[in-house]
Amino acid sequence: MEEIGFLGMGIMGKAMAMNLLRHGFKVSVWNRTLSKGFCDELKEHGASVGESPAAVIKKCKYTIGMLSDPAAALSVVFDKDGILEEICSGKGYIDMSTVDAETSSKISEAVKKKGGSFLEAPVSGSKKPAEDGQLVILSAGDKGLYDAILPAFDVLGKKSFFLGEVGNGAKMKLVVNMIMGSMMNAFSEGLVLADKSGLSPNTLLDVLDLGAIANPMFKMKGPSMIQNSYSPAFPLKHQQKDMRLALALGDENAVSMPVAAAANEAFKKARSTGLGDLDFSAVYEIFKGTEPSSA
Amino acid sequence: MEEIGFLGMGIMGKAMAMNLLRHGFKVSVWNRTLSKGFCDELKEHGASVGESPAAVIKKCKYTIGMLSDPAAALSVVFDKDGILEEICSGKGYIDMSTVDAETSSKISEAVKKKGGSFLEAPVSGSKKPAEDGQLVILSAGDKGLYDAILPAFDVLGKKSFFLGEVGNGAKMKLVVNMIMGSMMNAFSEGLVLADKSGLSPNTLLDVLDLGAIANPMFKMKGPSMIQNSYSPAFPLKHQQKDMRLALALGDENAVSMPVAAAANEAFKKARSTGLGDLDFSAVYEIFKGTEPSSA
Amino acid sequence: MEEIGFLGMGIMGKAMAMNLLRHGFKVSVWNRTLSKGFCDELKEHGASVGESPAAVIKKCKYTIGMLSDPAAALSVVFDKDGILEEICSGKGYIDMSTVDAETSSKISEAVKKKGGSFLEAPVSGSKKPAEDGQLVILSAGDKGLYDAILPAFDVLGKKSFFLGEVGNGAKMKLVVNMIMGSMMNAFSEGLVLADKSGLSPNTLLDVLDLGAIANPMFKMKGPSMIQNSYSPAFPLKHQQKDMRLALALGDENAVSMPVAAAANEAFKKARSTGLGDLDFSAVYEIFKGTEPSSA
Amino acid sequence: MEEIGFLGMGIMGKAMAMNLLRHGFKVSVWNRTLSKGFCDELKEHGASVGESPAAVIKKCKYTIGMLSDPAAALSVVFDKDGILEEICSGKGYIDMSTVDAETSSKISEAVKKKGGSFLEAPVSGSKKPAEDGQLVILSAGDKGLYDAILPAFDVLGKKSFFLGEVGNGAKMKLVVNMIMGSMMNAFSEGLVLADKSGLSPNTLLDVLDLGAIANPMFKMKGPSMIQNSYSPAFPLKHQQKDMRLALALGDENAVSMPVAAAANEAFKKARSTGLGDLDFSAVYEIFKGTEPSSA
Repeated sequence: MEEIGFLGMGIMGKAMAMNLLRHGFKVSVWNRTLSKGFCDELKEHGASVGESPAAVIKKCKYTIGMLSDPAAALSVVFDKDGILEEICSGKGYIDMSTVDAETSSKISEAVKKKGGSFLEAPVSGSKKPAEDGQLVILSAGDKGLYDAILPAFDVLGKKSFFLGEVGNGAKMKLVVNMIMGSMMNAFSEGLVLADKSGLSPNTLLDVLDLGAIANPMFKMKGPSMIQNSYSPAFPLKHQQKDMRLALALGDENAVSMPVAAAANEAFKKARSTGLGDLDFSAVYEIFKGTEPSSA
Repeated sequence: MEEIGFLGMGIMGKAMAMNLLRHGFKVSVWNRTLSKGFCDELKEHGASVGESPAAVIKKCKYTIGMLSDPAAALSVVFDKDGILEEICSGKGYIDMSTVDAETSSKISEAVKKKGGSFLEAPVSGSKKPAEDGQLVILSAGDKGLYDAILPAFDVLGKKSFFLGEVGNGAKMKLVVNMIMGSMMNAFSEGLVLADKSGLSPNTLLDVLDLGAIANPMFKMKGPSMIQNSYSPAFPLKHQQKDMRLALALGDENAVSMPVAAAANEAFKKARSTGLGDLDFSAVYEIFKGTEPSSA
Repeated sequence: MEEIGFLGMGIMGKAMAMNLLRHGFKVSVWNRTLSKGFCDELKEHGASVGESPAAVIKKCKYTIGMLSDPAAALSVVFDKDGILEEICSGKGYIDMSTVDAETSSKISEAVKKKGGSFLEAPVSGSKKPAEDGQLVILSAGDKGLYDAILPAFDVLGKKSFFLGEVGNGAKMKLVVNMIMGSMMNAFSEGLVLADKSGLSPNTLLDVLDLGAIANPMFKMKGPSMIQNSYSPAFPLKHQQKDMRLALALGDENAVSMPVAAAANEAFKKARSTGLGDLDFSAVYEIFKGTEPSSA
Repeated sequence: MEEIGFLGMGIMGKAMAMNLLRHGFKVSVWNRTLSKGFCDELKEHGASVGESPAAVIKKCKYTIGMLSDPAAALSVVFDKDGILEEICSGKGYIDMSTVDAETSSKISEAVKKKGGSFLEAPVSGSKKPAEDGQLVILSAGDKGLYDAILPAFDVLGKKSFFLGEVGNGAKMKLVVNMIMGSMMNAFSEGLVLADKSGLSPNTLLDVLDLGAIANPMFKMKGPSMIQNSYSPAFPLKHQQKDMRLALALGDENAVSMPVAAAANEAFKKARSTGLGDLDFSAVYEIFKGTEPSSA
């Protein structure tokens, strides 16, 4: 395959680019800030380093972006020396950042107006799955571009989906995160109920792990929650933002979601007590009362 | 092992008794109503059929009960020809029904007053795990009786816990079922949101199954839910009853559980529209509107 | 009218008995504990003081009870020297205490078994309306007894209802208190939202008072809530108990009430932080976060 | 006073314009679509009919807008032949639509950039108060414009507030409507609970009207709700929109509002079953089950 461009060398982007390099892809990378050491490391692994998003696009037929947020995702496209300056017919841009559907649509329209093709492809999974090539890729947009980039997706993820029109990748991610947020609340309520009712929360974890609702999240988060440890793998304020966006999507489509709404209010309660920057499992804290029990 | 009594031949009870028979236990069963065909089927498998709870208790050293609700659980103990008439020192009664702690305590006291020993042992898992001997057994009460009945538990379940004083088994079960009920609602909301937002619910199932919240319940129930098929493995009205009891337990201990409360109201809504006898996954139905979408 | 018995000289009972005396009724009172001064005050107003509930019943054709809770309401009936010892055909007992339907039924059955007639008649309104004869009386049970006691009700309340069979008075009260509890939550959320959004809560009170949802409760409670003053006119834990009982009534009848359920969880949250003995308007406290605002 | 412009002849706008006409104001009206009959009716009452928002602004020193939603409110300002084409120093635009703060700010900035003055002035009250000149007006923005338009406000409303900077009128309105929406849900739940519990909903109305939570909305809406009559004074979809916007305001300020969130989901449920265009009291419908009762 031809050289692939890669914009954004954060925790996720770097892990993904390294994976491509290890699997024999030629990769041309760019990051807003690149330390000497970082550049050397990438070069050692065979990457070339581009001077700007535009330069990478010019050099490569296909370029992947993995930026930290909507603002950064828009910046590499629309700013000076950005993607739009060089994107053209025959070239494709694949944005794997997690952004809202509106941001995605904006980028898609701009790229297509220049004749380029566009694919949004947010991922499910964080640092570890990125390093292990075990991401789940939720792509939508140009089907031809999807087919062309599939060999790279096969290296980056354990599974990729093509979901239709631009926006559907973002929407699918919201639906999944909404379910996850409600589950985290259900789990937290259960842990507190066990504890206040004289049951061991640790035994609850054991029981849960044997039953029909056993899942990696309970297994991974439960023990640290019981120890009130909330090192932020996925910050609570981001989880709450996703709940809000999912509820807004439901509102557009007249879908009543009372459980997600209750979970969202619990996350907001957590934000209101200063837990927004901790892991989303910190919502557990708000279910603990300050009194042992009262009648 | 000696012959074991088994009271209650509902979906669960029958599957469990059959399992004991298949593993070589002698079993004496009783049910409030036993059709001719049903009796014949049980007898074919080697069961003997008792005339009343009292008759079964009289015949067997250890008797298991698996009744549908607290009223039925109390009835087999306290009514005419009930357990109390024959329970005595040297005999044990193991109630595996899902009942509230109060019911369990009432039974425990009455049995112990007659000199018998008592173990509550509600299970996690429904029809399929019951058939496959893959239940999780949450027992509490008389430790000696627990040790004595363990060979039977090893056949009925993949794991059994001894949780201390009577009431703790019931409580643990309620906590697990409460989390499960909230999750089923979160899942249902997500499926409807996907559908109404132009995403394929089937693809959502695939995506969920690859991520951090993948769990057997989503995997097993999802495909049939999408086909609006709700053959009752665990009837919705029983799930709602468990939510109610878990919320009551929270009330006693001043634990606020807004997500479980919202889920409970959704199950009640489902009951109010006649879905109470279907599988608890039928709560999915109430999230579907009757209009395609409106602004 | 003949002399009326009156059991229970708490805040409410005393105000009501005084009202009867002021309007020319002969009243024979009893209280569990009666200080010398209190007796003298009652006697000055023309009351006679009975030695026991039984003594009062013996003396009077109609006796009203106004006890503090279900336990006290049961005690004056079933304990030694209680109502049951003297109630008989031709005598009526009117229980105006706020009790659950089950307690009411128990008393009703016992009184009727002795040949007496029974009316439950819980009231809406607290100290001030009791003093002013402005209670709302929700009676149910024996229609003949209702007609007979009406002259007294006309003095005690501004309006009385006859609602049919015993239990309906208690149920009506629960429905009203449930709506009230949800409204108090809606009001509290609005006050906090105004405050955090840079609006004056006091202006919100003014605006509310001019609109379609203006009501005495907002007008009376609002100013003290803004000053974080929660002197208990109606203790939060009693309001929460009524929410719980109303939700249980809904559960029996398969009525889904998500807003009441959310309000109930908020009251439980308030209990869990030690606010149970304050006025029910103290639920306001739990909506205030501890952080000024966060994104 | 000089001729006043009036943009938007919906239920509210028409009633308000008619009021101004009846009180001797000259009014120049405009609506996106005006049937012949409607035009004739307005002209009969003395109104002149403008061809576009721009034409009305050009003719009048002060112009009031009363549009159905943010999109319509923006459209009359920014679209071709919109307000911006003619607004200038010495002219004022008063937007009485219920919109979010962002929309209000956008309009304010655009109007002020052209030299015009701006006042947002959403109202509390629907069709009947609009007809009777009994609205409550929540204005914010240019204090001079407020003083100038006060004579018209005195005709349209029973009371007007000046709340400071642009956005505060919208916010106050949202807070009030949020409380109202939650109350309507609490009321609906209570009516259904009464009915299913064997109590008369009509008696509940009587009891409520005598107590601490008596309010004009219960009194006005109750009887028609019981008769399943939902002639749209305030369409449900607009009430739900206001709930959504109030919740979004809470989200910005980290205010958790579980009761409002539950009420919002109930309104969404109502939208999903096709009730969006009926009166907001039609949310009552969704609490009725389709089954008489089930256990």
